[in-house]
Amino acid sequence: MNGHFTHIDSIQQLLADALREDIGGGDITTLSVIPEGTEATGSLIVKEDGVLCGVEIIERVYGLLGGGVTVSLYKKDGDLLVKGDVIADLGGDARTLLSGERVILNVMQHMSGIATSTKRAVCAVAGTSARIVDTRKTTPLMRQLEKYAVRVGGGSNHRFALYDGVLIKDNHIAAAGGITNAVRAAKAMAPHTIKIEVEVETVEQAMEALESGADIIMLDNMDEPTMKHCVELIGGRALTEASGNMGQRDLLSVAKTGVDLISIGALTHSVKALDISLKFKVKHQ
Amino acid sequence: MNGHFTHIDSIQQLLADALREDIGGGDITTLSVIPEGTEATGSLIVKEDGVLCGVEIIERVYGLLGGGVTVSLYKKDGDLLVKGDVIADLGGDARTLLSGERVILNVMQHMSGIATSTKRAVCAVAGTSARIVDTRKTTPLMRQLEKYAVRVGGGSNHRFALYDGVLIKDNHIAAAGGITNAVRAAKAMAPHTIKIEVEVETVEQAMEALESGADIIMLDNMDEPTMKHCVELIGGRALTEASGNMGQRDLLSVAKTGVDLISIGALTHSVKALDISLKFKVKHQ
Amino acid sequence: MNGHFTHIDSIQQLLADALREDIGGGDITTLSVIPEGTEATGSLIVKEDGVLCGVEIIERVYGLLGGGVTVSLYKKDGDLLVKGDVIADLGGDARTLLSGERVILNVMQHMSGIATSTKRAVCAVAGTSARIVDTRKTTPLMRQLEKYAVRVGGGSNHRFALYDGVLIKDNHIAAAGGITNAVRAAKAMAPHTIKIEVEVETVEQAMEALESGADIIMLDNMDEPTMKHCVELIGGRALTEASGNMGQRDLLSVAKTGVDLISIGALTHSVKALDISLKFKVKHQ
Amino acid sequence: MNGHFTHIDSIQQLLADALREDIGGGDITTLSVIPEGTEATGSLIVKEDGVLCGVEIIERVYGLLGGGVTVSLYKKDGDLLVKGDVIADLGGDARTLLSGERVILNVMQHMSGIATSTKRAVCAVAGTSARIVDTRKTTPLMRQLEKYAVRVGGGSNHRFALYDGVLIKDNHIAAAGGITNAVRAAKAMAPHTIKIEVEVETVEQAMEALESGADIIMLDNMDEPTMKHCVELIGGRALTEASGNMGQRDLLSVAKTGVDLISIGALTHSVKALDISLKFKVKHQ
Amino acid sequence: MNGHFTHIDSIQQLLADALREDIGGGDITTLSVIPEGTEATGSLIVKEDGVLCGVEIIERVYGLLGGGVTVSLYKKDGDLLVKGDVIADLGGDARTLLSGERVILNVMQHMSGIATSTKRAVCAVAGTSARIVDTRKTTPLMRQLEKYAVRVGGGSNHRFALYDGVLIKDNHIAAAGGITNAVRAAKAMAPHTIKIEVEVETVEQAMEALESGADIIMLDNMDEPTMKHCVELIGGRALTEASGNMGQRDLLSVAKTGVDLISIGALTHSVKALDISLKFKVKHQ
Amino acid sequence: MNGHFTHIDSIQQLLADALREDIGGGDITTLSVIPEGTEATGSLIVKEDGVLCGVEIIERVYGLLGGGVTVSLYKKDGDLLVKGDVIADLGGDARTLLSGERVILNVMQHMSGIATSTKRAVCAVAGTSARIVDTRKTTPLMRQLEKYAVRVGGGSNHRFALYDGVLIKDNHIAAAGGITNAVRAAKAMAPHTIKIEVEVETVEQAMEALESGADIIMLDNMDEPTMKHCVELIGGRALTEASGNMGQRDLLSVAKTGVDLISIGALTHSVKALDISLKFKVKHQ
Repeated sequence: MNGHFTHIDSIQQLLADALREDIGGGDITTLSVIPEGTEATGSLIVKEDGVLCGVEIIERVYGLLGGGVTVSLYKKDGDLLVKGDVIADLGGDARTLLSGERVILNVMQHMSGIATSTKRAVCAVAGTSARIVDTRKTTPLMRQLEKYAVRVGGGSNHRFALYDGVLIKDNHIAAAGGITNAVRAAKAMAPHTIKIEVEVETVEQAMEALESGADIIMLDNMDEPTMKHCVELIGGRALTEASGNMGQRDLLSVAKTGVDLISIGALTHSVKALDISLKFKVKHQ
Repeated sequence: MNGHFTHIDSIQQLLADALREDIGGGDITTLSVIPEGTEATGSLIVKEDGVLCGVEIIERVYGLLGGGVTVSLYKKDGDLLVKGDVIADLGGDARTLLSGERVILNVMQHMSGIATSTKRAVCAVAGTSARIVDTRKTTPLMRQLEKYAVRVGGGSNHRFALYDGVLIKDNHIAAAGGITNAVRAAKAMAPHTIKIEVEVETVEQAMEALESGADIIMLDNMDEPTMKHCVELIGGRALTEASGNMGQRDLLSVAKTGVDLISIGALTHSVKALDISLKFKVKHQ
Repeated sequence: MNGHFTHIDSIQQLLADALREDIGGGDITTLSVIPEGTEATGSLIVKEDGVLCGVEIIERVYGLLGGGVTVSLYKKDGDLLVKGDVIADLGGDARTLLSGERVILNVMQHMSGIATSTKRAVCAVAGTSARIVDTRKTTPLMRQLEKYAVRVGGGSNHRFALYDGVLIKDNHIAAAGGITNAVRAAKAMAPHTIKIEVEVETVEQAMEALESGADIIMLDNMDEPTMKHCVELIGGRALTEASGNMGQRDLLSVAKTGVDLISIGALTHSVKALDISLKFKVKHQ
Repeated sequence: MNGHFTHIDSIQQLLADALREDIGGGDITTLSVIPEGTEATGSLIVKEDGVLCGVEIIERVYGLLGGGVTVSLYKKDGDLLVKGDVIADLGGDARTLLSGERVILNVMQHMSGIATSTKRAVCAVAGTSARIVDTRKTTPLMRQLEKYAVRVGGGSNHRFALYDGVLIKDNHIAAAGGITNAVRAAKAMAPHTIKIEVEVETVEQAMEALESGADIIMLDNMDEPTMKHCVELIGGRALTEASGNMGQRDLLSVAKTGVDLISIGALTHSVKALDISLKFKVKHQ
Repeated sequence: MNGHFTHIDSIQQLLADALREDIGGGDITTLSVIPEGTEATGSLIVKEDGVLCGVEIIERVYGLLGGGVTVSLYKKDGDLLVKGDVIADLGGDARTLLSGERVILNVMQHMSGIATSTKRAVCAVAGTSARIVDTRKTTPLMRQLEKYAVRVGGGSNHRFALYDGVLIKDNHIAAAGGITNAVRAAKAMAPHTIKIEVEVETVEQAMEALESGADIIMLDNMDEPTMKHCVELIGGRALTEASGNMGQRDLLSVAKTGVDLISIGALTHSVKALDISLKFKVKHQ
Repeated sequence: MNGHFTHIDSIQQLLADALREDIGGGDITTLSVIPEGTEATGSLIVKEDGVLCGVEIIERVYGLLGGGVTVSLYKKDGDLLVKGDVIADLGGDARTLLSGERVILNVMQHMSGIATSTKRAVCAVAGTSARIVDTRKTTPLMRQLEKYAVRVGGGSNHRFALYDGVLIKDNHIAAAGGITNAVRAAKAMAPHTIKIEVEVETVEQAMEALESGADIIMLDNMDEPTMKHCVELIGGRALTEASGNMGQRDLLSVAKTGVDLISIGALTHSVKALDISLKFKVKHQ
């Protein structure tokens, strides 16, 4: 995926595990019906408009299956696809081509679905300064791929996980005895390299967060006027983030409040797959 | 999941890996802000109507985190939930409760989303003899959970993977030199315990599949009259399965053709998460 | 093994683990005594008559050891070997050749032993319509290789595991309250792609199984006349399988009852290794 | 296995993997046919005379399956069993009992088979000073269990693997330029805690091995008079080991040559399983 | 370690792997010499002054070995120990106690060594506002434990790894065409939750980093006057970090320059183990 | 490491895990700041005198990262380095070069540190017959690399782990009821390929160990005259090993007592890293 990943990454493991899940002891249909040594060609075709994401999956999967499949790529991650576009042509051992098909499609359709809906959100706020960001509401073990798909769709990433960002929510605040205490505790304990974000629901909380030294203030479930008020009071002294069912809000009117970031859980928790299919042609000897 | 899984299953591994993905070296917010030993209670509340699936995840996740969290379940898998229903009450170490929250919600929301849309499809064909079945269009490593969710929603499972069923598609037919050859090859090679299914697109192909001894005939992308014609000609001598973008078809009119099975890829490839939230209350000492 | 396996399969893992079991921190004899860079050649020779199975193991093991060993194969899986036949010539780094020897022989001798005894059973029933099939009485983690060896010896495979076939035994029948109930339950719950097999010990049970819709009827521990009677009554409406200490029965007289399948546990639970040795010649510089 | 193993050992991993191999996504017969919550009892009965080995497997397997199965053991490893003896009674959840049956039997039958044939060899040399020892001709990943079974049968263990013993064979000798050079190299490089063994085929080689300081001398494929001559010449200055198709030799006459050790590959490479069965009784509610 | 870790963490894996590394197929001395069932007690005693770290290792290791060992802790992480202090008393199965000894000591001595040298550095800068921080110069797979030990010794943690912090060094600057470009690129691409740190070697670079918006400025290999000059010019608009062979510098004079942080690689790359021993007493029955 | 390791060894796993520990989801600095496709060169330079160890790590790490990095080695393991020596030149993709730097340095500096201090100890006893050996006081999962580094520094290896050597210590002696009983038990149970070592603290114990048939006698915490007395009494009938805080003793005077071996825990438990750095030069296009 354009050099964003190394070969020791968890994606290789995920794909190998997915292949084992789907193939296990063997693709008995293919082994029974396709004679050994049969050659085939195939084309990966998109069946609805959208943003492509995950082309690297094709070569990774066939690499794992070890069968000398050749891949000619005509599109790259981030390309806008029109129904009928050919993404790639494939050629090689028919058994291998068929055995890898499902895993490739399952992963690429999912990633392209995310990139497509992210792009839609990004376009909705075009002309404002708001950036669309993701959340931790991802599919187990797919987070790295899903967050990459958000970037491909034009979005930005929020913290990756619990270990690389501080986000103080209502429960943390209650336990710590107030925003100020919570921020102070976080500043004392967390690595100095990580910013402190606080989730607030009222203007008063936003101001307390700002004064306690928060680097980012999440405006949770606020209506646009309140949000706008907060943004103005904060005046650039901290980043502001709109949050809370943003998947069902009018993104442009949220963006117009002046927030820096809009985080949308639905980008990754309610994915509509982009329809892609792989058409094969067997070569008769 | 009511005894459908054993403790050596891949679900335990998936949840542990998902926790490692999300927590990694530690939940730095919680470790910084929540004092060690703080106790809390929490309630798992549904925020929209749907079918519950995955309650066993709660205890599994907190079991993996090892923190003596107590879980009082009020609902079980398959229950119809109304917005506001409390699924479970939780109690225990605040840090542990908070650190497991996201993984539990990510998995349960996904599974409940599948059960909910499956139930919707099953209801759509009520009164007919058609059963709703899933496909292999699943999320990597989630197949076991996703197919379970389909059953919880009232659907049935198609083959699990490439290794436990024979499904002869157009490419296999082309490579084998016709349906009859393909079925014969499959019968000779595949274990005798597995049925042979053939994908057909025309009435003629359906008849050839039947005569060659196919156990199941998949009627792919047919209009209802053609489908009905095939079902009548087959006359119960093989199972019939309607397939091809069924997520966008009128399921009742498909079912009325008399097919035994309707397989829907969208049940698992385009999941809309059911909105569930976990509300905590920290106990002050 | 002739394209029956992919590179992500469990065999690669098994061989790597077996090498780690045998070599661990290093082959201290070879590292001490054989000077670095020494070249050697070797020949894999069979020391008794039998059926060859597992030649792909040689290249897999040396591939895992990473030492540029060349392998010239003269025989392939399924070949009938006569004592003294050379299976393959090897050449390359002496340390690597020696360190991989034991794992290769342990696996190939085991697989060839299975293929040899399977071939013997298949020949015993030649001229009848009975097929020799294996069971789940296999060696831990070796099932895929062992079932492949059965096929190489001319046998067929029964279900691979508990997840890909339904076999209703006496305990299941007792728990379900009779054969009819058990078959009905299995038909309702199991995927529609899998056949239902029932184990019976009497003619009456065989008839009940047939009427309840069983696809396969296992005739367990029956004498030949009873078996023959059952086969005639069933009359082709279900597959029939002879079972129960078949390793110690006269296979031809069993086959003459007309059963479709004879399953033999001893093929895999009591394996006599085929004697193969690897003779090396060190090249002096 | 009487405290010979710890809980982090590879046996736990092997059993878990074997269960995954056999159960995978679920025992579909049992899940379909046995109602949830059904209780059952069972007895583990031996069906031919032999030496028991591997009783710890029962509790380990049911522990891994997590189903509260109770095990009452009546026999222990090393006990001589007579056909019909009850090894253990089991009780608990019927689904769990049934799902673990095959893996338990596959492993225990294999281990007991080894213990039985080892005991037979040990008895054959009773009255002499020769000890029966095993080799590295074991089943992949089963070596620890197989070598334990040899000890249970009264045999002793040779080195476990390539990393914990030095055994200089003909190829090593050729590469090193003679026995003396090879032993010298091994003494210089191998840890001082490990003995040096040399394989010899003639009296002259035996003498050179002795003079070069070998701790153990393996007399390979010698007839008894030559072997006896070597033993007398060595005169206790090194251990002596008879080797080479010992599974087909008259063990007593070999032992009477005075060798200290007789190593037999067939103990582990050609195992005849001891017939054990598990009979269940379902409790009707 | 005081609730800083969960049970799914990598420490459990590390300890299990370390036990496998040390025990493998079995502790042959203990299994040979200590009769099964022997009970023993033991005391963990420190043999030189230092800071204790890693007491949780004791219970984790014996938990993994599964042998019902009881542990009475008298000291906790961070305690200052004087030579001769008893850290804990142990009791239980003698074989288990002996088999776990080495791994426990190897890990605790290493962690306590780090905590001790960190404490020494922290004391050296007492009275200044400088905090002692660690680096990524850690031992493979031990980073989580080593960074915890730094905290126990009173130090703070720098970023954990390459994925959770941005640190722009000379090579990055060169590749990006200057500090300003590099910081701009990092701000555009990296998650907004992570601070940007720039390594500089001159006053001019420090000023450019500040102006480009760096959050943290690392003053690398500067003498104290230059460092002080930079700190004054930066004037609190960014955090300042002294770096470069700090293990061999006069920490107090560095701290007096006013830097916020002093990072010391030697804390973790050149660890002197704290001497701890485990004395056992076997109970004779 | 000059053919001392195979590609299935645990080192490959260790390095891959270490890279995952350090890089995880990605090196965000490099991915943000270094444009894709940038080429760079680099030199590995030593910054203090010492013995080099671990050059094979460089190619292994870059092989795992999969980025076509070229490595020109100028030095090999065991070479004496002078400050400023160039160990290797590197070239290739700048992102890959930078992402692997830290793991390479962490491992090589550690290994070279061990080789350097071992060489120092070996030189200290030059002219005597004593060999310097290591212990099991190693870093978790690094034992294979650390023991290799000891050999590179001119030392010899003691047993690798608990499974490949018998070392009877005071606790074992107490449990067994005396040295004679303990040695007898070990001889009866342990594989005949492994030597028996006994730890003694007095002359009387040394004599009992010798008479009971110990192969190696460890003289623990003795002053030089006592040690010398023991060595003379043993008179070559067993190997002798000096032990007990040897890292703080005058090694030459210990060696002059005539002991065969001096074992030093500090070689591996208190490692001072050898300072090595990797200087990059980015190629501008």
